Amino acid sequence: MADTTHPMFKRLALIGIGLIGSSISHAARRHGALVGEIVGSSATEATRTKALELGLIDKAYATAAEAAQNADLIIVCTPVGVCGRVAQEIGPHLSPDAIVSDVGSVKTSIVADMAPHLPAGVHFVPGHPIAGTEQSGPEAGFAELFDGRWCILTPPDGAEQPAAKKLAAFWTGLGAKVEIMTPEHHDLVLAITSHLPHLIAFNIVNTAEHLKRVTDSEVIKFSAGGFRDFTRIAASDPTMWRDVFLNNKEAVLHMLKRFGEDLSALEAAIRADDGATLFKRFAEARAIRRGIVEAGQDIASPDFGRSGKAVPNSGKR
Amino acid sequence: MADTTHPMFKRLALIGIGLIGSSISHAARRHGALVGEIVGSSATEATRTKALELGLIDKAYATAAEAAQNADLIIVCTPVGVCGRVAQEIGPHLSPDAIVSDVGSVKTSIVADMAPHLPAGVHFVPGHPIAGTEQSGPEAGFAELFDGRWCILTPPDGAEQPAAKKLAAFWTGLGAKVEIMTPEHHDLVLAITSHLPHLIAFNIVNTAEHLKRVTDSEVIKFSAGGFRDFTRIAASDPTMWRDVFLNNKEAVLHMLKRFGEDLSALEAAIRADDGATLFKRFAEARAIRRGIVEAGQDIASPDFGRSGKAVPNSGKR
Repeated sequence: MADTTHPMFKRLALIGIGLIGSSISHAARRHGALVGEIVGSSATEATRTKALELGLIDKAYATAAEAAQNADLIIVCTPVGVCGRVAQEIGPHLSPDAIVSDVGSVKTSIVADMAPHLPAGVHFVPGHPIAGTEQSGPEAGFAELFDGRWCILTPPDGAEQPAAKKLAAFWTGLGAKVEIMTPEHHDLVLAITSHLPHLIAFNIVNTAEHLKRVTDSEVIKFSAGGFRDFTRIAASDPTMWRDVFLNNKEAVLHMLKRFGEDLSALEAAIRADDGATLFKRFAEARAIRRGIVEAGQDIASPDFGRSGKAVPNSGKR
Repeated sequence: MADTTHPMFKRLALIGIGLIGSSISHAARRHGALVGEIVGSSATEATRTKALELGLIDKAYATAAEAAQNADLIIVCTPVGVCGRVAQEIGPHLSPDAIVSDVGSVKTSIVADMAPHLPAGVHFVPGHPIAGTEQSGPEAGFAELFDGRWCILTPPDGAEQPAAKKLAAFWTGLGAKVEIMTPEHHDLVLAITSHLPHLIAFNIVNTAEHLKRVTDSEVIKFSAGGFRDFTRIAASDPTMWRDVFLNNKEAVLHMLKRFGEDLSALEAAIRADDGATLFKRFAEARAIRRGIVEAGQDIASPDFGRSGKAVPNSGKR
């Protein structure tokens, strides 16, 4: 099983130790034979101290360049907006044959920002684990975060690239399922499955905030009616999401246009008392939910299992 | 404690036995002294059979009129759109001094639809428990559904009305917290806390569906990025939601207008690469989440506790 004397990577460097970085550490330790040593860097002293205290990393560095030295796998776990600067900083310090990856929610702009700074001989395999919670920081991570979730890799030379195969095996070891695609396709798919939902969630929470004078704290008090579900995803890290929208602008604006057109159609149906159209649209939406539960990307418990109730009819739809 | 020989109501009639009706039964049985007998009506034979089989009701009737006879509390748990017809049907069969209530997600139109059909001497106290899951039917109910949730009552004569006080005590017995307001104020508050979020969720799921040819099943496969949270609320009962939008049209259209204006501002910020505005809006949204967790209307576990992970830092934000 776990061959701890010959790990897949001798030294893993995590550049940035937030939710994703700390979860990679937990999941790698759980496996046992993926990595020998784990080192990490953070510009924030409190984060370095906490990461050492939690045993997430064996050594902590203030700069990415120091952490990257002698590492055979470097994963950049910073917000998307600083990935280019990190690549520039670590480029001259990388070992030949090292694999460099990231976990950013956009891929086209990251390739453009990072690739020019990485020397020949270094293998760049961008990655994106589709997993997360609304929490952040080194304490937020846990070993199960990637279990059963997808990790998308966008290697420039495709799936047959040996470094891509090795990184895919690494992510499989962390519990994830791996899919290979182009950066451009990734950005389009994620625009609808992740970026637009987050934008909408941020927006409706802001709309409610403007109405505070009308409804006072009632918006919060009666949030169980549906609003609270939006607030959870709207509680995600503002820096990360700012960078996502700045770096996947075209795809997000495209999806937003479609969303707006569809919403106008629903608005018109409400205005015209057109119950048949509303019913049809709502019934269609229901079927998609079934697909997601069947695909194993969510649990079937009602209300996300918030009630704590045992669910005898779990999976029934 | 529970005085089962002198229950608060001798005979409770549930008109409609779906998620809410069955949960009222479970919660009333759990308490022990709220009701003597529980009877129910459904036009669907399979629902009547299932409700008897699950012990939700002691007697099942095919018509609302039969169920309402001799009941001292009648709760109409049907979709909003049929409440008026139910009132018309049960009106002539109601006992003097009976309390009639409902659980509809809109209140102004229900008052207009039901009140004219209820005879003098009968006390009409409309109600709305702010609780639910995306599941429906008599098997979906459970005793804990209302625990710690709000139930809004909109009695025509205000909080001092004796029937309102009695019904408030009943809902408190079911586990809920009770708030009294006017039907108009209820509809405004719910438009933002519930109706608009559902409309948006239905809409984004539909938008994704249109894009299926581009992204194929990838929309479902990679839904863990945020999209799946929308599908859960979009999986709610289409009939119920059609009726909500047809019956709270003005308030929903008003909120939708505000939402559209705010979304246009975010879109403009993305288009103009205005990271400062995006960061500010996202950071504001985060604070609202804290308020909801502090108000006890959601759990602090990351990702709705889907990971099954113990949460050492629960409640930290």
